[in-house]
Amino acid sequence: MSEEGAGPLGGLVVVDIANMMAAPSAAMMLADFGATVLKVERPDGGDVSRQAPMRAGGTSVWWRLLGRNKEAITLNLKHPEAQAILRRILKEADVLIENNRPGKLEAMGLEPARLHEANPGLVILRVTGWGQTGPYADRATFGTQIEAMSGFAHANGHPGGPPTLPSFALADGCTGYLGAFSVMAALWAREQDTKRRGQVIDLSIFEALFGMLGPQASAFDQLGLVYERQGSRAPLSAPRNIYRARDGRYVAVSTSGGANIAHRTFAAMGRDDLITHPHFATLDARLAHIDEVDTMMQEWIGRHDADDIVRILSEAGASVAPIYSIADVVKDPHMKARDLIVDAPSDDIGPLKMQNVFPRLSRTPGRVRWSGRPLGADNESWLLERLGLTRRDLARLRKEGAI
Amino acid sequence: MSEEGAGPLGGLVVVDIANMMAAPSAAMMLADFGATVLKVERPDGGDVSRQAPMRAGGTSVWWRLLGRNKEAITLNLKHPEAQAILRRILKEADVLIENNRPGKLEAMGLEPARLHEANPGLVILRVTGWGQTGPYADRATFGTQIEAMSGFAHANGHPGGPPTLPSFALADGCTGYLGAFSVMAALWAREQDTKRRGQVIDLSIFEALFGMLGPQASAFDQLGLVYERQGSRAPLSAPRNIYRARDGRYVAVSTSGGANIAHRTFAAMGRDDLITHPHFATLDARLAHIDEVDTMMQEWIGRHDADDIVRILSEAGASVAPIYSIADVVKDPHMKARDLIVDAPSDDIGPLKMQNVFPRLSRTPGRVRWSGRPLGADNESWLLERLGLTRRDLARLRKEGAI
Repeated sequence: MSEEGAGPLGGLVVVDIANMMAAPSAAMMLADFGATVLKVERPDGGDVSRQAPMRAGGTSVWWRLLGRNKEAITLNLKHPEAQAILRRILKEADVLIENNRPGKLEAMGLEPARLHEANPGLVILRVTGWGQTGPYADRATFGTQIEAMSGFAHANGHPGGPPTLPSFALADGCTGYLGAFSVMAALWAREQDTKRRGQVIDLSIFEALFGMLGPQASAFDQLGLVYERQGSRAPLSAPRNIYRARDGRYVAVSTSGGANIAHRTFAAMGRDDLITHPHFATLDARLAHIDEVDTMMQEWIGRHDADDIVRILSEAGASVAPIYSIADVVKDPHMKARDLIVDAPSDDIGPLKMQNVFPRLSRTPGRVRWSGRPLGADNESWLLERLGLTRRDLARLRKEGAI
Repeated sequence: MSEEGAGPLGGLVVVDIANMMAAPSAAMMLADFGATVLKVERPDGGDVSRQAPMRAGGTSVWWRLLGRNKEAITLNLKHPEAQAILRRILKEADVLIENNRPGKLEAMGLEPARLHEANPGLVILRVTGWGQTGPYADRATFGTQIEAMSGFAHANGHPGGPPTLPSFALADGCTGYLGAFSVMAALWAREQDTKRRGQVIDLSIFEALFGMLGPQASAFDQLGLVYERQGSRAPLSAPRNIYRARDGRYVAVSTSGGANIAHRTFAAMGRDDLITHPHFATLDARLAHIDEVDTMMQEWIGRHDADDIVRILSEAGASVAPIYSIADVVKDPHMKARDLIVDAPSDDIGPLKMQNVFPRLSRTPGRVRWSGRPLGADNESWLLERLGLTRRDLARLRKEGAI
């Protein structure tokens, strides 16, 4: 507890029996900030993310990222002895993170009531696509389905074109953040409770994404408004779009944050006349004449190179940016100054680059200690040293397919 | 502390002097789970989100959402007496959330060192586009710029088409989740510390979004891979795309989660032959022949209606979903069974609908108590009752523009 450099969560013990991305992301957040996170995997191949595409040295960079800062053991949770070992571990743990379909945890002898009998303080984070209740609770679900049904895909893309899914594992990523927060909220509640009781958290990936998509439910309720595909336009700001510069590069411009930003943008473009123009003076007017606004912007931007546009409009206080791919991100001087990307040690392919730990805490920062380890890398340290099994036990359990 | 129904964070006091969306979202999360969150706004108009588009009863649904469960007072932080009032409040608070550009907090007499002198346990969450350090630290930044430079827009959209910004305030939303988590991590660290010290959190909106976009940095480092626009395809699963059904509706299909899902999908489509076909048998093969895979899928889907496709492929265990807008979400039976949308009381327009509090905690759930209140609605209860100012003080401060 409070060891030097352990991070804010040093001393907490988290057991991650989840698979793939959403729930393991939440466990990664806790590990990044110093919790001891024990990743428990099937002996036959382990977490699916290990064999996901984008493999380096035979193991996907997905696992190398999501497994970072975690210790890795194998347990076949269909085997009664493996279940018993996990129950022993959970007796001393603070948090269990799982993402089985409802009822499956129970089938493995790990029902929350039983776990809480042995360890009343345990916080159990249950991550599923649709939550533990409701007609869809039993459905096999992945991020795609969530992104399709949350309103995201419907509103993502260009008018006349098809709805568009995100190219990133968006729903999984935001579930990781929300899951980590909810675990800390439940741990906080435990510390305030005279009986130090944990609880069960029902985290739906759908709800995690839907919850951060802004006031679409209120806008529909109050105004009948349905977000539609409108390319890179947005209802909060005008101009707000992506335009093509003379040199073929794209730039994004937004003018949120009050009338002044748009006016300063127009002034920097030599168009002071627009500041009082009835179609350009106010945000409401610009939204009502958005085609005219975008045509004017594209016309000016098409006559300048991207770097000049960014410089001119930045100086005017506009929110303007070039479109970056990861190749641009890694060489940007700001990203370098912030150590956005760090080297993470691995057991097999030398250090590999990945994103740092965010955000930055001044007194007890998190950090990347290692990338995702080989399957079962910590079997001996956990099963022999911590739990006191013998080498003979281990050999037998291995033979029986329990570890 | 631990009052019945207060939520897991009951007893915590959070002061939100931020503006717009990202940082106030973090404060909303804490309020949703029971913290007392005091929103401090400029007397002249308050938070910019109040006047954002999508107004109902003169106030944007953005504010009605982001201000929910918060108490609202006005303080002009350029006025020395208002600064002194805020310092008094912060002396007893647990958390300060702000999103000024670096240096501005200091200019208002609220530099973290001074605040920590009066209250060493204070956790100070500082949210900015680019973080407190680095060459871009002083830039005016909004979500658009972040979405442009994080790699998101570059990879969002269709091949041959332009990069595409999200239609939702994506970067702001994920910053809210990450900000709430980091505050809880710092509070946890405070409770473990013998001196009960708080700290400063440097949360960059860019880093919040970049951190959840998966292993793009590792894939670029190890494989030279740059995520490009590929419509609704994704590198983790094939088939994974949006297809147009016979009735003109769109459906999303994904087959993540192991070889079996894709095989079961093919079987359900009457294409058992594909299970052993060299272009369809394995994920790697399907990714290498993705055009062929998508053509086959579109051909079959184009011959069926959306509801039938969802039923047939769901039964096969595939991840399939119709594309929903918010109008579809609100009437879906699962969403109704889960109380996805709730009625939030308001002071002026009656109850309005908004998303519930996610996730669901079994013992100490969060809840929506009220929607964003009118400007200065809690001035009297805070300034008179809690701080002991007189009505005469209030009248004078109001006259001087301090409140």
